[in-house]
Amino acid sequence: MNIEKNIAIWAKGSTVLMVEQNKLPFSYEIYESKTYKQTAIAIKTMITRGAGSIGAAAAFAMMQAIIEAPDNNFQEYINNAKKEIEATRPTARDLFAATERVYNASKISIQNAIDEAFLVTKEISDSCKNIGILGNTLLKNDARILTHCNAGWLALVEHGSALAPIYEAHKHKKNIFVYVNETRPRSQGARLTAWELNQANVKHAIIADNAAAWYMLQNKIDIVITGADRIAANGDTANKIGTLEKAIVAKEFEIPFYIAAPSSTFDFSIKTGNQIIIEERNPEEVLYQKGLDQNGDIKTIRVASEGSTALNPAFDVTPYKYITGFITEKGILKPEELMVLTQT
Amino acid sequence: MNIEKNIAIWAKGSTVLMVEQNKLPFSYEIYESKTYKQTAIAIKTMITRGAGSIGAAAAFAMMQAIIEAPDNNFQEYINNAKKEIEATRPTARDLFAATERVYNASKISIQNAIDEAFLVTKEISDSCKNIGILGNTLLKNDARILTHCNAGWLALVEHGSALAPIYEAHKHKKNIFVYVNETRPRSQGARLTAWELNQANVKHAIIADNAAAWYMLQNKIDIVITGADRIAANGDTANKIGTLEKAIVAKEFEIPFYIAAPSSTFDFSIKTGNQIIIEERNPEEVLYQKGLDQNGDIKTIRVASEGSTALNPAFDVTPYKYITGFITEKGILKPEELMVLTQT
Repeated sequence: MNIEKNIAIWAKGSTVLMVEQNKLPFSYEIYESKTYKQTAIAIKTMITRGAGSIGAAAAFAMMQAIIEAPDNNFQEYINNAKKEIEATRPTARDLFAATERVYNASKISIQNAIDEAFLVTKEISDSCKNIGILGNTLLKNDARILTHCNAGWLALVEHGSALAPIYEAHKHKKNIFVYVNETRPRSQGARLTAWELNQANVKHAIIADNAAAWYMLQNKIDIVITGADRIAANGDTANKIGTLEKAIVAKEFEIPFYIAAPSSTFDFSIKTGNQIIIEERNPEEVLYQKGLDQNGDIKTIRVASEGSTALNPAFDVTPYKYITGFITEKGILKPEELMVLTQT
Repeated sequence: MNIEKNIAIWAKGSTVLMVEQNKLPFSYEIYESKTYKQTAIAIKTMITRGAGSIGAAAAFAMMQAIIEAPDNNFQEYINNAKKEIEATRPTARDLFAATERVYNASKISIQNAIDEAFLVTKEISDSCKNIGILGNTLLKNDARILTHCNAGWLALVEHGSALAPIYEAHKHKKNIFVYVNETRPRSQGARLTAWELNQANVKHAIIADNAAAWYMLQNKIDIVITGADRIAANGDTANKIGTLEKAIVAKEFEIPFYIAAPSSTFDFSIKTGNQIIIEERNPEEVLYQKGLDQNGDIKTIRVASEGSTALNPAFDVTPYKYITGFITEKGILKPEELMVLTQT
């Protein structure tokens, strides 16, 4: 695989380019989207995924709609586009923050909206860089870190959120080891986080999601860091299904549990996690698995009993009481300190 | 599939017959083993699996060795066989209990050993029937039950342990619903428990192992019941990896957490779970998945990133403090009441 730069999504003119994450880790391809509709589909089908990358994709999709919109139907076209983009992934806060900003910028001029889309993306990337620098202060030499899902550069345009401190620690030659939760049903841990860490030569091993508590009980995990999809004003955090379970067991064993996220992931318009809509995805994600066969071809197989169905909530909400702190670009904050982020 | 009887393992003369559980749920086949070595391999490769079925297989394997043993080398042959059988699955208490009993019975006569092997198997089956009757008293109408791995009739010769109360409740026309943890890495929940429940027309859905806490937080789970592989005198319980995590989150949400197991699974020779040896299995069980392709052929695919490895503990130990009670054939017991089982 020839990876020129560790960037998940970018734009050239009105064309959006993104790493085709459904094909990773088996092949590295760049998906080109020419229209807002194509970009919306790319978000929905998870060609691009992860809080920040969804935010950037939504910003660029909104930008594409604004560029495409006919003069005689401008407002209706971009209003419809905004709704369509926002319907793709209901849980992701960054998505709504991004469409809103680019949409509002278009009230001044089309060029202003284009600039705003690029700025949204740059801000996510810059924030993550800072999250890495700040989060690294939490990682001692010989730290053993557990992470869930993928909150690396694939998920956040560049650098990552949960993985940013890990990359920073590795850059500073700290000896670290990462336990990578497989993260069923879509296995973003085994497929994407493991792939990223392998590329970066960070020591790691994949574990079944079931194994985390067992390693904690044996004192083999020092800290847990995950990303987030939406964080309420009180710190309740929506993230990949399973995050709640890891947070509860971490608390039981008094292991610090951190959420790493740029401030764009915080939604101060909602007081608690009860107001977060949880996306229910297709049961087939649980019942079938995709992977490489012996010939190197990508195959989909049924891994569950034929007569049975599945329930597939994509996210859960972790109440703030299980969260030690939030690693943001503006500082490492306790749940009760989050209001700092509303101050400019 | 033509399933004549819901029995996982039995013997005719010196031939052991078992449901080929590696092929389920995709095909139902009976595996015939003619020698103790074949039966030992069947245990090791998980053709038969689950605490009680391993116990029965071990009893029959010991019996086969005793029948096969040449007169001029009887004692050495059966001593070696015992070691070989016991090395197949180090965590399973029933295995050691079974080989010990049949081995000791051979001191009287070969026929006595044969009778003992059949008795071991019958006792597991009878115990499980009782576990069903007793456990059913814990299940209210409209109960929503979470189970982990497979502790059904496949795992325990007949009836099951964790599933026995569910079958009994269903027989009594209670309206129940079972959340079936997929149970990665070998997916015994999605493959075997779902298959059993579907056969029996019990309402259920498979969930990713990550989703259990989320359903608990939403008050959608009333009780958790799992099986066990070995239980120490104080109630610490070795069971499928992930059991510990489910027990901790159940306690957090004050949901009763029960272990269902026949008394053969209790090991009063060890005081606590610290003395239980945990089997570490091949990383490939995490990195690869087996299932049915579109043509109905069984295929194995790699589901994880190529450059990465995995850690694969097969079991974990749940400290007794997380366990509400034990559903045994002799009663439903709290951890501090387990010594009752040592009285005849």
